[in-house]
Amino acid sequence: MGLRLRPVDTSFYDLFTQSAQHLVGGAELLAEMLSDSSDKAGVAERMRAAEHAADETTHEIVKKVNSTFVTPFDREDIYALGSGLDDVMDMMDEAVDLILLYEVQVTLPAELSEQVEVLQRCAELTAAAMPRLQSMQSLDDYWIEINRLENAGDRNHRRTLAKLFSGEYPTLEVLKLKDIVESLEGAIDAFERVANTVEQIAVKEG
Amino acid sequence: MGLRLRPVDTSFYDLFTQSAQHLVGGAELLAEMLSDSSDKAGVAERMRAAEHAADETTHEIVKKVNSTFVTPFDREDIYALGSGLDDVMDMMDEAVDLILLYEVQVTLPAELSEQVEVLQRCAELTAAAMPRLQSMQSLDDYWIEINRLENAGDRNHRRTLAKLFSGEYPTLEVLKLKDIVESLEGAIDAFERVANTVEQIAVKEG
Amino acid sequence: MGLRLRPVDTSFYDLFTQSAQHLVGGAELLAEMLSDSSDKAGVAERMRAAEHAADETTHEIVKKVNSTFVTPFDREDIYALGSGLDDVMDMMDEAVDLILLYEVQVTLPAELSEQVEVLQRCAELTAAAMPRLQSMQSLDDYWIEINRLENAGDRNHRRTLAKLFSGEYPTLEVLKLKDIVESLEGAIDAFERVANTVEQIAVKEG
Repeated sequence: MGLRLRPVDTSFYDLFTQSAQHLVGGAELLAEMLSDSSDKAGVAERMRAAEHAADETTHEIVKKVNSTFVTPFDREDIYALGSGLDDVMDMMDEAVDLILLYEVQVTLPAELSEQVEVLQRCAELTAAAMPRLQSMQSLDDYWIEINRLENAGDRNHRRTLAKLFSGEYPTLEVLKLKDIVESLEGAIDAFERVANTVEQIAVKEG
Repeated sequence: MGLRLRPVDTSFYDLFTQSAQHLVGGAELLAEMLSDSSDKAGVAERMRAAEHAADETTHEIVKKVNSTFVTPFDREDIYALGSGLDDVMDMMDEAVDLILLYEVQVTLPAELSEQVEVLQRCAELTAAAMPRLQSMQSLDDYWIEINRLENAGDRNHRRTLAKLFSGEYPTLEVLKLKDIVESLEGAIDAFERVANTVEQIAVKEG
Repeated sequence: MGLRLRPVDTSFYDLFTQSAQHLVGGAELLAEMLSDSSDKAGVAERMRAAEHAADETTHEIVKKVNSTFVTPFDREDIYALGSGLDDVMDMMDEAVDLILLYEVQVTLPAELSEQVEVLQRCAELTAAAMPRLQSMQSLDDYWIEINRLENAGDRNHRRTLAKLFSGEYPTLEVLKLKDIVESLEGAIDAFERVANTVEQIAVKEG
């Protein structure tokens, strides 16, 4: 434990990056949750811890907005970006929770793993984009790619629904699986909203 | 009927307080709706009247924004707060309506009453917080407590879903109950959005 | 193919009008999709093309915001209006897609056609209102009527749900139909959000 001479000034960019890195971790836990051999209760426990850590970062962002005189961009936008990143974590946490809670009695359709891969890619792209907010450089690539991924996720989502409704699953299992796939879709949508917020910030500040 | 010498200036704070007090009434009607002995059609009728009264207040807020030169905080924020409060009422009205409409054939799970208690507490806290917008004092307590209640509501919500999916209810009844519990959850979320709006206003104006 | 001497300056009003006209086309395709005799795969294909065309217009709006120094109203509001109109198209596209994808095994309830009529009326009113953003004249009529239609749609929506839950349909078909009617309701709600955005712009600029 060293001696800290003065408070470290963690900049907004660092906090947004930290927040997005929590999402990379969350998406990994989601992938682990889908594996047949995983200890579901254990993964859900770690997800809960990850979600709390993400909450902490969000609160630091809000506190920093409150106590900073000159912010790098509009306070409302900082707030929107912080809470947008937090929304993604909440949706991923919900998906993990439902998988544990619902005790699905059938094999999870392979399409769920595809959606989680989309989420992992979105999380990596978002974590890589956050430091670039400082220079506002190369952000177009990020939001275009997120939009493309969201479209792919949407098509996959509808295909999954069609499969659930094909008659091959008991109706109660359809209901459970539908909730789970919708929380995955919700997480992908939440990534798109973050990208839209970044785009709006760039429009204003660019 | 007295002589009114000059128009009464109902301030924005009064209107927001009025709007939140409609929510206290709405949450009470929702509690009444869940009781076994209630006249469901009659309660739904009174809820409709309460929802109309709330709409009136919302329109007064919008009209006042339109006709006021200097507003106590940004017009958009007044608008967001007014419509946020209105959203809560719409969700509570939806819950009441669905309970009447769906003719659920099973006993409502006890978890529904717990959610309505959360809603009643949120409504009281919100009504108590609105007059404090004038001084911007002690608003932290309000939104921290709303966020805590929303978290508790969320956990209760997921527990309810797990119970619905346990296999003890006919699938069609599961579908009905799921819609009803989701409208309750939606009302709690709407209270959280109101608290977030208040937090954002405090960030800007504080 | 004529000679174009200088770039045509398509104003924001023209682009919003164009965007809303895509919605008129989309609502017509939705009506066609519900007819018993329609070639469902063909209509869905044309809907996809319409949705792409609408996306193009949305991107033109965003590009124009980026490259214009003086905008007729706040950049954020232009962005909100553009993406709000785009949301309607996405919801209508989803409805068409689900009707194709789910292969509903029962006759679609007549209430669905009523909702599509509401959507067609909303689309026409919105397309007629967009050019009036320039003068900010007679916009009240537009948003009051959209709100009235949304209320009517909401009542019809709940009646439809009650019918779906009456026990006359197999549960799996109830699930499919519920998703379809919810996407219609979602499109009507999205029209209301557009009207609310217009109202907010008028509040600010009026």
